[in-house]
This record gives sequence, C-alpha cells and structure tokens, in this order.
Amino acid sequence: MRTVTEHRDAVLALAAPLTSREVPLGEALGLVLAADLVSRLDLPGFDNSAMDGYAVRAADLAGADEDHPVSLPVAGDIAAGDTAEHALEPGSTWRIMTGAPLPRGADAVVPVELSDGGDARAAMRLAPEVGRHVRRRGEDVGLGDIVLTAGQVLTPGRLALAAAANVPVVHCIPRPRVAVVSTGDELVRVGEHPAYGQIVDSNSAMLAALVEAAGAEVASVTHVPDDADRLRDWLRELPGEPDLVLTTGGVSMGAYDTVKEVLREEGGVEFVRVAMRPGMPQGCGAVGDPPIPIITLPGNPVSSFVSFHVFVWPVLRRLAGAPVVAALEDSPEVIETVAAQGWESAADKVELTRVMLGPEGAHPSRGQGSHMLGALGQADALAIVPAEITRVEAGTRVRCLPLLGHA
Amino acid sequence: MRTVTEHRDAVLALAAPLTSREVPLGEALGLVLAADLVSRLDLPGFDNSAMDGYAVRAADLAGADEDHPVSLPVAGDIAAGDTAEHALEPGSTWRIMTGAPLPRGADAVVPVELSDGGDARAAMRLAPEVGRHVRRRGEDVGLGDIVLTAGQVLTPGRLALAAAANVPVVHCIPRPRVAVVSTGDELVRVGEHPAYGQIVDSNSAMLAALVEAAGAEVASVTHVPDDADRLRDWLRELPGEPDLVLTTGGVSMGAYDTVKEVLREEGGVEFVRVAMRPGMPQGCGAVGDPPIPIITLPGNPVSSFVSFHVFVWPVLRRLAGAPVVAALEDSPEVIETVAAQGWESAADKVELTRVMLGPEGAHPSRGQGSHMLGALGQADALAIVPAEITRVEAGTRVRCLPLLGHA
Repeated sequence: MRTVTEHRDAVLALAAPLTSREVPLGEALGLVLAADLVSRLDLPGFDNSAMDGYAVRAADLAGADEDHPVSLPVAGDIAAGDTAEHALEPGSTWRIMTGAPLPRGADAVVPVELSDGGDARAAMRLAPEVGRHVRRRGEDVGLGDIVLTAGQVLTPGRLALAAAANVPVVHCIPRPRVAVVSTGDELVRVGEHPAYGQIVDSNSAMLAALVEAAGAEVASVTHVPDDADRLRDWLRELPGEPDLVLTTGGVSMGAYDTVKEVLREEGGVEFVRVAMRPGMPQGCGAVGDPPIPIITLPGNPVSSFVSFHVFVWPVLRRLAGAPVVAALEDSPEVIETVAAQGWESAADKVELTRVMLGPEGAHPSRGQGSHMLGALGQADALAIVPAEITRVEAGTRVRCLPLLGHA
Repeated sequence: MRTVTEHRDAVLALAAPLTSREVPLGEALGLVLAADLVSRLDLPGFDNSAMDGYAVRAADLAGADEDHPVSLPVAGDIAAGDTAEHALEPGSTWRIMTGAPLPRGADAVVPVELSDGGDARAAMRLAPEVGRHVRRRGEDVGLGDIVLTAGQVLTPGRLALAAAANVPVVHCIPRPRVAVVSTGDELVRVGEHPAYGQIVDSNSAMLAALVEAAGAEVASVTHVPDDADRLRDWLRELPGEPDLVLTTGGVSMGAYDTVKEVLREEGGVEFVRVAMRPGMPQGCGAVGDPPIPIITLPGNPVSSFVSFHVFVWPVLRRLAGAPVVAALEDSPEVIETVAAQGWESAADKVELTRVMLGPEGAHPSRGQGSHMLGALGQADALAIVPAEITRVEAGTRVRCLPLLGHA
C-alpha cells in the first residue's frame, strides 16, 4: 500500500506546467506569469502635481505663512491630461490639478486649501520646501524596470501594475482544462427519477465545481455506463481538448469495474491502494496521444471529493505553474488548529476527517462514512490525521486543509 | 470628516440583497442560497452494500472464521445499478458490488477479501454482525430533510449535496453586475502611446479584476473624457444592466472634476471626505430609475484600489446576500498578525498601509504614495492602522485585510 505522499509524488510526476502563451490583461486574473514583466514607461511618466493647487518656485514663497500670505499672478490653468509643455516664469504661478504635468521651472506645489483659490492672482499661506507635493518622473518605476517576476500569480494589484506599465498582453500559463467522466450503470442525471437500485449522479456536478473552484476550466463532463466500448470511445475522443482527465467510479474490487478493465487493457495507468481513509482505491497514468495525465477517482462521492483535494488539486496547481509540495501536510494551504473534541481515526492510514472550523478549533462533522454526503454540506476543512494516530485527543494540534471554495 | 465606519455605513445603506432566482447547479458555485434546500430523496435511496463482497444472513455464518470458513451457494450477482428486487434464500448468498441494492432478507455483507471469491459457491471466513457493511436507506439524509439553509454559500461540497438530494436548480441570489466608468482627459488605453501629460488607464483593468476577484460580474467598462455631456449620456444608458456603478476620477478639489459636477447637478449623490489614507475623497448615492447604487472612487490607482477593498467589497457582499459588518476591522476576512518592523502612520486618519505578509509578520511594501503602483505588485494585504496611532511599533499586533485575489 502506498503512502499519501508517495501517491502525490506519482500523480505530480505526470504533470508539467502547460505551455505559456500571450493572454490579454482582461483574461489573466489568477494566472501565473511565465516571464518577468518589464515596464514600457517611467511611472510617473512626467513630473506632476500630487495635489490640486498652485505650481510655484519654492524660492518665490520664502517667508509665506498663515499671517503673511504671498500673492503671485496666475499664468493659467494646467489640467490633468494637458499635453502642452508650459513654463513657469519666476514670480508667477500656474493653477494645477492633481496629476497634471508640472510647468518647466516649477519645483513645488501649494495645495489649494492653503491659498485663497484665486484665478487671476493667488495668495498662498505656505513656504513649501523644494519638491513638496511633486511626483517626480520615474520615482515609482523606471522604463525597463522588472515590475513583476515569472512565477507570480496575477492578482488585481499586479494586473493594475501591468496596465500602468503599458503592457496590454501578458505572457503566462493558461488555465488547465479538465475532462470529467462519471461511470456507472446505476447513475441517473440530477432531477431525473432514480428507480430502485439507481442513484443520482452527484459526482459530475461536484467535480465540475471543484475544478472551477481550483481556478481551472471544465473541458467536458460526460456520463458513460459500465460499457467498455463506450468508455474506450470516450477515451479516444477526450472531448474539450483537456489537459487532465478525471474518471469517477469503476476502480474498486468489484466484477464490473469498467474503468479499471479498460485502462488496464490500454496500458499506461496503474491502480494502487493508498493508505488513506476515505479514498483508498486510486489510479493514475496517461492516456491519448500526446499523452494526457489521468486520475481515476473512486465512485463514492465523499471519497472522490477527498481524493480531489489530496491528488487532483496539486496536479492542477502544477499544470498552472504554481508551486507544489509532495507532502500534503506541508501544502501552503494547510492551517494548524486544535481539535475541539476527540475522535477516532483509522489505524495505519491517513484519515481525512471532514471538520467544521470554529473559534474552539476543529469539530468532526457528523457522518464520516464515505457514502455520507450530508456531512459534506457542513464541513469547512479536511483534518489530516497521520497514519500512526488512532485517536485525536481534544486539545491537541491538528493540521487542516481548507476545502476548495471556502474563502 | 467622516470615519471609515460611518462611510461604510453610508454605502451599505444603499444596497440590499439582489432578488433571488432559480439557478442551475452548474452556474451556482459561490452564490448564496436564498431558501432552505430540502432533499427530494432518502440518502442512501435503498439499503446497499458498502463493499464488494457477498450479501448474507448473518445467522448463516455463525462461527465462521479464518480456520473455519463457511461455504454457501451463490444465487447470482447484483451489480451497482441493478434495478431488480432480488431476495436472499436462507442458507445462500448473492455476490454483490459496492453500492448495489441489498437483496431482501440479507442483513450483512462479507467483503470479497474475506472469501475465496467463488461464483458458484463462496467460502467465507467471517461471522459478520447484523448490519455489517450495510448502508441503510435514509441513514445519511431523509426525504424532506433540510440539507442546506438559506444564507449558506454554495461551495463544491454543498453543490454535491444538492445534486445528491436530486435538486437540479437552486434558489439563490445572483452574482452582482458592476458597470465601471473611468473618467479623465489624461487617460489613454493600455498599449497606446501616452503623449506628454497623459497616463495609461490602469484603473479600468484593475477594477474589472477586483470585481471578478470579489465574485461579481463586470457589466461594462467604459472610458469617458472630462466632458459633462458624455458622462450624462453614459449615466442615462448605464450599459450592461448593472446592479452597482463605479466611477473613478473627477472627485477631488480641482476645477475639472466632471464626475462631481455632473452628479451634484443630478442629485442623489453625496461627496464627502473620509478620515483615511489613501482614499480621502469619496462619494456615494444612487443613479438611474430604478435607482442603482453608485460609488465614486478617487482617480489615483492606489487610492481607488484601497477604496474598493474598504467600501465596494462590502457592498458587493451585501448585494450577493453575504453577511457584512460596518466596522472594517471586524470584517470576517480580517486577520491579526504582528508588525515585522515599525512604520509611521497618518495622524487622525485610518492608514491603510500596503503590506507584505511573511513568517515574521507584516512589512510595509516600499513606496506608499497614492500614485505608487510599483508597491502594489508586492503587497498581500492592507494593514488597518487606527486613526489614533501615528506610529506602528515593531512587534505590536496589527489587523490586516488580505487583498482580493490573494488566496
């Protein structure tokens, strides 16, 4: 039986970051930069005013204060967006707006609040030091400066910086696309009436939501009955040009395990038992030409949900160019809290207990059976209970992986 | 001058949760449920096997163990999805797959691993207790049970539960739609060459990304020059059927503040100063018929970015039906850390310092000027420094609002 870390290593070995491409800023939120981003401009692009007020030579206002205003003639107005290159004659001023270019010769700005606001002459009650309320060309970013580096995630602030640096299209790693196939004769679509012995296919909706919550895209979602030919056809087609294939169901010890049967025949996929609960039966490999990574998830919705967090999420991160570690408990998403109550855990297996996080710590949600979906609606995180622990004692530290989509 | 909390109160008073509607599961990720969700099925829907193995009457295997296997004739196979109602004769067994319906009369399952796996007769090495490896109808969820409650966010696990409960369409509050207008003669589009005195419009790309990162939808993004008629036309049209309108620029103390001029004329919008840095000039109100909330953001990209986090985000949460609190420092998103170094803060204003979060705590990013976008690329959070603090001392506690899009 494999450890969780060994199987994470195995699935991660199947995936490499996708080929980078040029993406417009408007579509790049959340993507990973594939190359350093270089500013095409100085920021600011020209000396400009940080305030609405008057552009002056500081020397002309020596000695000005509340009781001794100094009055200067106003040469005119300079608005933000004024593209003329104005000059400031000694002994005069220009009225200037925030962001407007400083006239040549000016070296300070007096805020309008410290003046009488005049438009022919203005009386100013401040003797500013040189550079006061002036934003100097290039003081924030210089033309040619590297402002973002390869590997950074494009957050809203970084997209703003890319825009300000006049870069409309960024070189980054695209969102991975995932094809999902749920298998099993027993499944009916959500909203259809299940006959005796049938169940509603919740895995399709769940996996599509998990893919989306992980920042990836759903390439296709298909249901295939337990029919080897139909599954083979689907594998040949792989609808939606996926970068990753997920199957659910058909991988346990039963006589009708179509996924196992077909993929064993085709080769390139290994089926293993992983020392975890839930989610012991796992499989991974590659299908198609060129080969695409495939992960075979158990059919139990709860096992499938847990397996997605443990094995599929890191693969999606690697495909997207984000950093990953093999050891689940060392993932950057993992938080540490205390067990608010005690609970039993499987011997010799990593137990992934569905827990609710509260001010007192982690409580297991009721109903931990792998077929029990009710508890999944209340859980916030998976507590990662190591294989050697058979009972989590109240008050002890426990590491938890917050569930996807739980901000 | 208003406090931050007073102005958050004012903007929140403009917004109410949007009208709820029916949304298919595939489009509901992240939305807030507007009504309790009731299961349309028992879960499980029928007694079924938790293992691949043999369905038995426990009494028939009394005394069986590793050394004394009991052999029973196999009546046949029951696969998952088998819709026939089989019966188990005393003294016999059915081979059964995980999830398959238990034959009438069976009360336990022996896992295949504890048998010889036979298909005509099977020898079993376990005397199971009644109920062993059997999942009882309705033991997880009962038909008519409330499985999710109004106000819950639809996470992947909850969508799986809704699907399993056979509810294909959920009653929830839709994603708010936001129309963005950036104003100013000085702006050119990203990728165009700015002449002397012009700057690249980074606010449009930034606000669109912030809207998306906050889980809302961009209804439209428009640039309007400093021309009152053009702005009035835009306000009459409000492209994209928005639920919220955001403007940037044109709201400070200058002579060319078109947004202020036009909205003052039309009425319904107040312009105020808020005791915060950056982001002092703020405005909010309602426009159009029926009235839609409007928030006027400063033109400085950094001020606009900070103002979005402080005022727009809570309004989007309220429109989306999520809980909000007026006091920024009490928001559920706020985390507490320590100042890794000391820094100065504005007197009598809440300072929102852009900080990087590291293992030692919060470091201010370099360049805190409201025109300084370079630092925005490195920041992870806004440190919320109260008005009465003029210096944050290294090692003291500081509350931080993680930036949108920073997981």
